[in-house]
Amino acid sequence: MATTTTAIRMYDLAGADPARRFSPYCWRIRMALAHKQLSVETIPWRYSDKPAIAHSGQDRVPVIEDGDRVIADSWAIANYLEDTYPDRPSLFGGAAARAAARFINSWADTVQNGGTSTFVAADIVRHLDPRDQEYFRQSRAKRFGMTLEQLCANRDARVGAFRQTLEPLRTTLKSQAFLGGAAPLYPDYIVFGGFQWARTISDFALLETDDPIAAWRERMLDLFGGLARKNPGY
Amino acid sequence: MATTTTAIRMYDLAGADPARRFSPYCWRIRMALAHKQLSVETIPWRYSDKPAIAHSGQDRVPVIEDGDRVIADSWAIANYLEDTYPDRPSLFGGAAARAAARFINSWADTVQNGGTSTFVAADIVRHLDPRDQEYFRQSRAKRFGMTLEQLCANRDARVGAFRQTLEPLRTTLKSQAFLGGAAPLYPDYIVFGGFQWARTISDFALLETDDPIAAWRERMLDLFGGLARKNPGY
Repeated sequence: MATTTTAIRMYDLAGADPARRFSPYCWRIRMALAHKQLSVETIPWRYSDKPAIAHSGQDRVPVIEDGDRVIADSWAIANYLEDTYPDRPSLFGGAAARAAARFINSWADTVQNGGTSTFVAADIVRHLDPRDQEYFRQSRAKRFGMTLEQLCANRDARVGAFRQTLEPLRTTLKSQAFLGGAAPLYPDYIVFGGFQWARTISDFALLETDDPIAAWRERMLDLFGGLARKNPGY
Repeated sequence: MATTTTAIRMYDLAGADPARRFSPYCWRIRMALAHKQLSVETIPWRYSDKPAIAHSGQDRVPVIEDGDRVIADSWAIANYLEDTYPDRPSLFGGAAARAAARFINSWADTVQNGGTSTFVAADIVRHLDPRDQEYFRQSRAKRFGMTLEQLCANRDARVGAFRQTLEPLRTTLKSQAFLGGAAPLYPDYIVFGGFQWARTISDFALLETDDPIAAWRERMLDLFGGLARKNPGY
C-alpha cells in the first residue's frame, strides 16, 4: 500500500474571494479526493499565478503534489489516485468502467462544458481577481473568436437546445441514482464538475427544476458533508 | 450455471434479401451473443411480421427466445444475457461498467443513431421487402414530420457537423483500442450497431477515411470471424 504521511496539495482555481473555487476540472478532483478519503490542502490559484505551477510542466490546474510527485490534468490525476491508492474506495470500479469513464470524460469536456461556457462564461469575470480579468477576457476572445458577451448572447433562447444535448445524462439518471449506479463514482464527479462550475459563478438556470439531472445535482451537493454545497455559489 | 440445450432464437430485422440484417439494435445483440459464445438461430423479420413477435408484448426487434423465456429491447436482452450466463465472457466487466454503459447506450440511441438516420434513412427503402416499403415511409413521415427525402436532404453539407458530434467517441478511441479498453465490451457493440446499420443500407460516407473511429469500425468488422463484415453492405 502506498501511504501519505502528509496531505496531498492541490492548486485550485479561485476567484477574488479565495473561497470561490470554480474550475470544473478542479472540482472533479476535489470530489475524487474526498471519495478516496484522502486529505487535501488546497492552494487558491489564479490565472496570474502560472509560475506557481511551472514545476508541473504545463500551465493549467488542477495540479496536485503528493510528496515529491507532481501530476497535472484531471484525467491523469484521477488515474494516479486510483492506481496509487488501490486500497481506498475505488474511483472507477474496475478496468472496464475506467475505459467507459473516458468516454464520459470526453463527452463532458466537449458537449457539456463547451455548451455550458456559452451560458456562464461572461458571468465569470465579475468573480475574478482583478489581476485575472483582462487575461481572462483576452484569452477567451482568442479561443472563441468573439467577446464573452457575444458568446453568451441570447442564452434564454438557446438553453432549450442545450438541455436537449444533456439527454444521454437525463435518460441514465432516470434509471439509476448515479452514473456509477447505486452510488457515485468518478463519472459522477466528471459531470458534476461542470454543474458546480456554473453554480459557482452564475445564477443562470442551466436546468429546469423538475429535470432528473437537477435532482441528481442535489444528491451530489450533499456528498461528503456538503463539500460542494459549502462553496460560494448561486 | 444456467445452460441452454438449444440455440437462442432471435428475431432479426431483414430486408428484401433475408441476409441483409440492418437494425442497429439487433446488431448490438448479434455481437453480444457472439461475445458470450452463445449459439443463435436468427429469424429474418420484417416490419410486416409484427404478429410473429406479439408474444413479446411489444412490436419491435430484437426479440430473443431462450427456452421458454422471451425478452425484448436490446438493453434488457444484454442485461439478461449477462445475468443468465455469468460464467461466459462478461459483456460489461462489472457493475460500475454496466452503469456507465447505460450512458453510452443513451448517447448512441439519441446522438449517434438519431443523427445517422438523417443521412441514411432514405436509402433504407430500396432494400426493404416490398410489403414493408409503404409502412416504413408512412411511419417515418409521422415520426420525423417530413418525408425521408426531406429528412436526408443536403447531407453532404451537414455531415461535418454530424462528425463533430462523434467527438467523445473519437477522443476515446484515440486513447484506447475499444470503448471496453484493450478488448471490446458491450459499449463497443452498442455503438458499432449504428455504424453497421448505416453500412448495410447506404453507401454514404459517415466517416472520413482517416478518422480513428473508422479504424475502430474495421476492428469491429473483424471480430468473431468477420461476423458483421459478412453481412451484405457497402
